[in-house]
Amino acid sequence: MPERYAVGVDFGSESGRAVVVRVSDGAVLGEGVTPYAHAVMDRTLPTGEKLGKEWALQHPQDYLDVFQQAVPAALKISGVSPDDVIGLGIDFTACTMLPTTADGTPLCFLPEYARRPHAWVKLWKHHASQPQADRINALAEGRGEFWLPRYGGKQSSEWFFAKAHQILEEDPELYGASERLIEAADWVVWQLTGVETRNACTAGYKAIHQDGHFPDQGYFAALHPDFADVVQTRMKEDLAPLGGKAGELTPQAASWTGLKPGTAVAVANVDAHVTLPAAGVTEPGRLVAIMGTSTCHVLLGDELREVPGMCGVVPGGVVPGLYGYEAGQSGVGDIFAWFVKNGVPPEYHEQARREGISLHALLEREASTQAPGEHGLVALDWINGNRSVLVDANLSGMILGLTLGTRAPDIYRALIEATAYGTRVIVENFEQSGVPVNEIVISGGLKRNRMLMQIYADVTGRPLSVLDVEQGPAVGSAMHAAVAAGEYPDIFAAAKCMGKARRDAFVPDAKNQRTYDKLYGEYVTLHDYFGRGANEVMHRLKAMRRAD
Amino acid sequence: MPERYAVGVDFGSESGRAVVVRVSDGAVLGEGVTPYAHAVMDRTLPTGEKLGKEWALQHPQDYLDVFQQAVPAALKISGVSPDDVIGLGIDFTACTMLPTTADGTPLCFLPEYARRPHAWVKLWKHHASQPQADRINALAEGRGEFWLPRYGGKQSSEWFFAKAHQILEEDPELYGASERLIEAADWVVWQLTGVETRNACTAGYKAIHQDGHFPDQGYFAALHPDFADVVQTRMKEDLAPLGGKAGELTPQAASWTGLKPGTAVAVANVDAHVTLPAAGVTEPGRLVAIMGTSTCHVLLGDELREVPGMCGVVPGGVVPGLYGYEAGQSGVGDIFAWFVKNGVPPEYHEQARREGISLHALLEREASTQAPGEHGLVALDWINGNRSVLVDANLSGMILGLTLGTRAPDIYRALIEATAYGTRVIVENFEQSGVPVNEIVISGGLKRNRMLMQIYADVTGRPLSVLDVEQGPAVGSAMHAAVAAGEYPDIFAAAKCMGKARRDAFVPDAKNQRTYDKLYGEYVTLHDYFGRGANEVMHRLKAMRRAD
Repeated sequence: MPERYAVGVDFGSESGRAVVVRVSDGAVLGEGVTPYAHAVMDRTLPTGEKLGKEWALQHPQDYLDVFQQAVPAALKISGVSPDDVIGLGIDFTACTMLPTTADGTPLCFLPEYARRPHAWVKLWKHHASQPQADRINALAEGRGEFWLPRYGGKQSSEWFFAKAHQILEEDPELYGASERLIEAADWVVWQLTGVETRNACTAGYKAIHQDGHFPDQGYFAALHPDFADVVQTRMKEDLAPLGGKAGELTPQAASWTGLKPGTAVAVANVDAHVTLPAAGVTEPGRLVAIMGTSTCHVLLGDELREVPGMCGVVPGGVVPGLYGYEAGQSGVGDIFAWFVKNGVPPEYHEQARREGISLHALLEREASTQAPGEHGLVALDWINGNRSVLVDANLSGMILGLTLGTRAPDIYRALIEATAYGTRVIVENFEQSGVPVNEIVISGGLKRNRMLMQIYADVTGRPLSVLDVEQGPAVGSAMHAAVAAGEYPDIFAAAKCMGKARRDAFVPDAKNQRTYDKLYGEYVTLHDYFGRGANEVMHRLKAMRRAD
Repeated sequence: MPERYAVGVDFGSESGRAVVVRVSDGAVLGEGVTPYAHAVMDRTLPTGEKLGKEWALQHPQDYLDVFQQAVPAALKISGVSPDDVIGLGIDFTACTMLPTTADGTPLCFLPEYARRPHAWVKLWKHHASQPQADRINALAEGRGEFWLPRYGGKQSSEWFFAKAHQILEEDPELYGASERLIEAADWVVWQLTGVETRNACTAGYKAIHQDGHFPDQGYFAALHPDFADVVQTRMKEDLAPLGGKAGELTPQAASWTGLKPGTAVAVANVDAHVTLPAAGVTEPGRLVAIMGTSTCHVLLGDELREVPGMCGVVPGGVVPGLYGYEAGQSGVGDIFAWFVKNGVPPEYHEQARREGISLHALLEREASTQAPGEHGLVALDWINGNRSVLVDANLSGMILGLTLGTRAPDIYRALIEATAYGTRVIVENFEQSGVPVNEIVISGGLKRNRMLMQIYADVTGRPLSVLDVEQGPAVGSAMHAAVAAGEYPDIFAAAKCMGKARRDAFVPDAKNQRTYDKLYGEYVTLHDYFGRGANEVMHRLKAMRRAD
């Protein structure tokens, strides 16, 4: 029997990445990357109009370019014939959403709307919907909506209804012109297949789909009379399950990608969640941390629990039959990058250059000779706010213990440790809520920092496994394509053959663990003091910045 | 009547500086600086012996070199004839002390003792006497010694009896061989005049001379039986008043300096305290801040008050008839220097180089465009511990409010603001204890940083005057020489003619003051939380560093 292949496409914040994967064992044979021509639009529209603070938009054409460039490139490198490609799957950032006409044409593609900011794609990190999110939360709390605790007690400004509500409030005419409000994930699948679907994952995590339905009309009407029928008029109410087949490649989409018309296209997925099968994780108790600029934690559980400060829990939101829990740290890699760019004096830059290594690598080496506690520092990792478990974007970072002897590698290490303490808070919060965490599986670029990995093992007191493929989400998408094409009966079977994680790649050191238990105690005291209302200085400082 | 001149010599930590000053108006006509050949000896003796941690010694010959080099150099530049020089005065760091024979020969000059660390001069920042200071404090507290509150409740490891006690405990034979234990300030006057004196200033601030006497024999005996008679056997008990004449230049000293034998030599003084008359400050309510690597605050008062956390109060310790209060911040300029060296990325270094300005000047310029509160940061200025009012070397620095947008000039400004908040704590602490502070007079190199000066005015809400001469202490010493020589009846008269401060050089801006009142409130909350026992995380982190 000939080998079969699947294509996975991962839509990130700055580029799209395609991989060609062997269905029998998950091997990656080819890869292509297409940077988005318009990247993140956070200052002006392509037509020149200025955007407000906290806006973050994208251009839908950039996504289509990925199909026309990255997919053929990956195919070519792999040497695989389109005849042997049985399916294509995609994953996307979320909630990334846009308004379209009934036939799926983005409103921003229409000349009459191209100059209106709300016509464009709102990227996940568009935060200008905070006022709407605040009202969504206040109303839900006031009405005692059952779904609010499923999201850790809070809807984010990043999510679907906050963004949709912002369109209605700020540009009612455009809202009126919109016939669909859709996740970009589902929109690209629509462009490939001609079939509109709404995937269960984004609907559950980002659009308050719980226990089989979206919030009721009464709730939306209370938010705004014209918002009452947002679901009925602008959203597909029946959801498509993960691993399902959304449709087949149209001749036009086949010509973009170089694949055959009729190739199976899987229901869309979310980048973080699709990583679990790629790591072979389809059972409870193994927490997958996708570590990049921020960290997303996804965990499977047998039972429905309400976990304070998590991002959300969705039955079947990751794999069928299990509850998928999500939590996150809003700043991780970007904190280290911020420090390396803004806090390191020239002597280290020069030394890294002399040795031909990156500044990160130099700082890691210098800091890795230290014992835990040796630098005398403790930091709070809220430099980009706190997602879980405090859900508070107005918190900020702190470094404590500075002396005249403190040097850049000390602070670098302290910041890494702080993010590890932040992960431990999330892990303990899950466990205290009845969702066990026995092992942590690391995916994403930061897994290459060995000091960081050992610190995470020592701080959390748990063995770390490492996702062995470099492009976890894209591979996970290819696995869903294989399921959609019928090559595997379900994602469990696909994960068993195609998923890969190196188990126990880092195990806790008992001595380090004892020291980190003490330091973690200090972190928790400061975390609660600054994060739980005893001293809201961080809020007041941010308010002063804005008032100025 | 011909012009008369006085010579002032300021002995700092790294060099000695001589000035020739016109007696009629305080104009500085010539200046000479001699760096100490042995600088600060904190690792080895000149003979190669290794020193322990926290040691800081000096070589007495380096002081004599200043008389032989800096004084003649200043004289030469001034063009003044030795015939017209009516007196010489000196000031010194304190407590800087040494053991000598009965004739004043330093024990370190004797070959049999030259290899013993305790034979050398202990510089003010010799901190290896901490165990002795701890015992001095515990005993005084247990016995309820009346003098302890006069020092804010604590004797420092830097001061006289801690250092003397360390000699006795660690090298009893050398202690036995010592016939005098003397301040270096008084020792150099002895070398100039052949007359042993003990100045009232160091005796009061550093050697627990209160209400006319040193602590009694019972106290010292309880510390150590062999220490009972330390005062009676090794110290001059009658003190010489400031502005008094210690003696006259011997022919030998005259030949060193180029001055005439018989020239009046003033009683020695302390560098910080002698700055007040140089600034024309001889009345209550005007606090002089001598700002360098650390800041020393000296304030005159009408009445004796016990001020928690101050360094000391001495009647006539600065000028006759008034109480001289001293407080301090253990890190100021050295904090800014630490940050500039260790926390600023290459782009700023390059820009400063391109513009031909210092990195400090560039950061000041970049930070000075900000409004108070704009950077969103608040810091604790304890990077080198806290002297007043917490008297706790085990505290450490903290920066709070960090975001991904935080840049080096933001932190630079926040650190400057933190030291200003620290000064305000000291000022308010004096006022709450009944010692008014109406104005702040700034001396020292940091007064050239205009942003810093405006911040200090805005934060403290008080007008800042600026000492207009560059070498305040040396000029103050010359003024004392003029009094000792009989050119002025007292230091008040001398200060009126020779003292100089630009009044109200910086005045508070009402709008900035309101913002800083809020930020100061945040600082005080954090100050008390971390500094007064609610969360002793800084102590625990330092203990972990040492344990490692």
